[in-house]
Amino acid sequence: MQNIHLDFDNVMAERIGEEHGITRAELGDIRERAAKCFQNLVKERSGGLLPFLDLPYDKHTTARVSEVANDVKKRDFSDFVVLGIGGSALGNIALHMALNGPLYNELSEVRKGCPRIHIIDTIDPDIFNGLLRLINLEKTVFNVISKSGTTVETVAQFLIVRDLLRKKLGNGYGKNLIATTDPVDGALRRIAGEDNYTTLDIPEGVGGRFSVLTPVGLLSAAVSGIDIEAALAGAASMDRLCQSDDIRQNPALMNAVLQCISYNKGKQISVMMPYSSRLKGVAEWYCQLWAESLGKKLSVDGEVVHCGPTPVRALGPTDQHSQLQLYMEGPFDKVITFLIVGRFESSIKIPSDVPDKNLAHLSGHSLEELMEAERLGTQAALTENGRPNCTIYLPEISAFHIGQLLYLFELQTALAGKLFGINPFDQPGVEAGKLNANALLGKKGLEGRKKELEQFYGRRHDCKEGEENVI
Amino acid sequence: MQNIHLDFDNVMAERIGEEHGITRAELGDIRERAAKCFQNLVKERSGGLLPFLDLPYDKHTTARVSEVANDVKKRDFSDFVVLGIGGSALGNIALHMALNGPLYNELSEVRKGCPRIHIIDTIDPDIFNGLLRLINLEKTVFNVISKSGTTVETVAQFLIVRDLLRKKLGNGYGKNLIATTDPVDGALRRIAGEDNYTTLDIPEGVGGRFSVLTPVGLLSAAVSGIDIEAALAGAASMDRLCQSDDIRQNPALMNAVLQCISYNKGKQISVMMPYSSRLKGVAEWYCQLWAESLGKKLSVDGEVVHCGPTPVRALGPTDQHSQLQLYMEGPFDKVITFLIVGRFESSIKIPSDVPDKNLAHLSGHSLEELMEAERLGTQAALTENGRPNCTIYLPEISAFHIGQLLYLFELQTALAGKLFGINPFDQPGVEAGKLNANALLGKKGLEGRKKELEQFYGRRHDCKEGEENVI
Repeated sequence: MQNIHLDFDNVMAERIGEEHGITRAELGDIRERAAKCFQNLVKERSGGLLPFLDLPYDKHTTARVSEVANDVKKRDFSDFVVLGIGGSALGNIALHMALNGPLYNELSEVRKGCPRIHIIDTIDPDIFNGLLRLINLEKTVFNVISKSGTTVETVAQFLIVRDLLRKKLGNGYGKNLIATTDPVDGALRRIAGEDNYTTLDIPEGVGGRFSVLTPVGLLSAAVSGIDIEAALAGAASMDRLCQSDDIRQNPALMNAVLQCISYNKGKQISVMMPYSSRLKGVAEWYCQLWAESLGKKLSVDGEVVHCGPTPVRALGPTDQHSQLQLYMEGPFDKVITFLIVGRFESSIKIPSDVPDKNLAHLSGHSLEELMEAERLGTQAALTENGRPNCTIYLPEISAFHIGQLLYLFELQTALAGKLFGINPFDQPGVEAGKLNANALLGKKGLEGRKKELEQFYGRRHDCKEGEENVI
Repeated sequence: MQNIHLDFDNVMAERIGEEHGITRAELGDIRERAAKCFQNLVKERSGGLLPFLDLPYDKHTTARVSEVANDVKKRDFSDFVVLGIGGSALGNIALHMALNGPLYNELSEVRKGCPRIHIIDTIDPDIFNGLLRLINLEKTVFNVISKSGTTVETVAQFLIVRDLLRKKLGNGYGKNLIATTDPVDGALRRIAGEDNYTTLDIPEGVGGRFSVLTPVGLLSAAVSGIDIEAALAGAASMDRLCQSDDIRQNPALMNAVLQCISYNKGKQISVMMPYSSRLKGVAEWYCQLWAESLGKKLSVDGEVVHCGPTPVRALGPTDQHSQLQLYMEGPFDKVITFLIVGRFESSIKIPSDVPDKNLAHLSGHSLEELMEAERLGTQAALTENGRPNCTIYLPEISAFHIGQLLYLFELQTALAGKLFGINPFDQPGVEAGKLNANALLGKKGLEGRKKELEQFYGRRHDCKEGEENVI
């Protein structure tokens, strides 16, 4: 089996010059520190502090997920709805888009008897209403995912669905609900117990954005026929490929190092640009992982650092017609990662009868060849313009290789956290916004904050035609 | 009719401090220059140099688009496919997502007899194959959009579709094709003439990313029942609201000024964050407009400037669980624009029977109220953390208000170009990549370049398990 791999020639100074490229000397300088970071990670891992790294070997969970998935399939549901947000949705979306492909929900022959999959990661009432109009409640199973059981968006979705199901199905409504949550604590766990939902455990110590290989990401995958064992085998194989503390023999460590050096050379934006629409979800998932893990005010020593690269999702070749002008000519503030695939599922030929001589060179090529020519052409142009870029190559979009890719990014993120000297596993910055929202909704004890917020920010938007419309 | 408007309190120093906020003095300093920029634009406009600004008044085009749209509707097509990329797709997507909503393609009762809409802005063979499996060729009309008629992705799509249609329908195949292209020149115009396609003209002097209010963006809108006259009326009304050279009375000029000052204070990233999933397409459209217009190597005086803010599309409240941690605690390199709506189409209440006391404050609120509390809570938290943000308020997602919004952004972009001292209407940086791709595809006269590219960049990806996988 071919592995995914990393090609970083085009971030090196030999290719793009010393001002923006990384020199061999810079790599040499960081090698020892990188090795230490990796050794520390290994130590923490063997001390049980990084359980997400051991998920590929958790046979017990895989068996449990498969059991629940088989039960769902047996009961002949037409629709499977994930209610979750952030890390409780993005992994599902990544796997679903990549491995089920664009026609899964549309064509029953593609689904092969599996239910349609809907991942509702917002509380936008137009989207939620759309879902409710599309499905038949009785034939739908809802997978509510929240570690704490108190994620306000997910809980709101859950309460609405619970109410509708109870009205429709009476006391047995719990058969249409599966709760993926903390093994012991939280509101969702308690209600699930009382009302007899099927439940799945989110393993202790695994944060939301590192949870794709837990029941959080695996259940919707298994229900839709994705080979989750192959995905886990891919992740395990990437683990094996990343055992060395030598950057030259550890792609996760090497890519973490390249991204960190680039950031410190002023490349504060990290573009993830797949040349396959199926990998758009993987890119979105990466954007959460990278942003939420590395965007931190404080270093592990308590120093104020305000660190963090900004991930941006682009898509080839579409964004050649949208973002490329900026990437080619704008500030030297980006490092671009191309995510490319060796083989598409479909192959389509451009006919050889081309009715214009200016287009004759397209004759007889396939769309895949055109994609590849555009990708290589873009990459060469960027490189020759001094713009650092690297490439991650997937032989094909299979469960095994997606498993490899996700594990590579997770490990790379943990290592980048060490290189940046921050804690990649917390998210203290989101608490203030949550507290504000709870205050505005009338949570007890926050009345003073509510008043303050309304006074300062609660602007009325009522300008009429003719009135001043800059306020 | 209420107008959309701009609230910029939270980018000002009074709110977020002098280090990251804009002071009244800074606004005062730039006022005169901003006024001059606007006066120059007015002069160029009356000299006929900026025809995109006069599109809202082009009754002739509107009538022609409506005529073609009515003809499509009469002929009872089941599917309408846009083949285009970049500016020839993003405007269509923006209008379609915002105004037709998430259920349009799924439910015939929402479509009210109009055809399904597919906008294929990629040559990914899996996506293209998906399209072909979904539609019935005979009942499908394809709108090929390319100004030059030589956009390689669009032409490739077109050649494949043309071949399939000819095989299926014989000589009359042209009835299933509509070409939107240059009025006179180009391969597409020529073929369309020979084979009797319906054609629509892209007005002279209007670049792709400013073409949403031409037949490029309007036809798929009209075919799907969007009130294009209301959209144009909205655009015209925004034009009227932006007649002053005083920043305090011209929201486009004011927002251009705020973005430019912020950029010069180190906020090189411009986040566009709608709190409505329907506005995701508008945000993507904005990202092209802003990036491709302002990302430039040279100033209008020929000086090397490498200027250009990087636009990033986020989505509330989903990205509170993905990007917010970075926005709150990371580098002070962002200015955020919230795009909010006063009224959603649907309204959904959270039931008052909430089975956990920690969630009691959700009881009886609607999802819309929850969205608004989260938005305001997030905005307040960002503001109190010194993070500049402003808000564009839409009373509702109607054709009129979307027309206002698109025109506001187009005008703002042209004015920002003047403030940055660059030409916002060209895109010289994308040519090198196109030439490379053509060389790789075997275009005559580029044989030397092809060899060079293959030698330097054409790396073989064939690592096997066990071999080194960092190359």
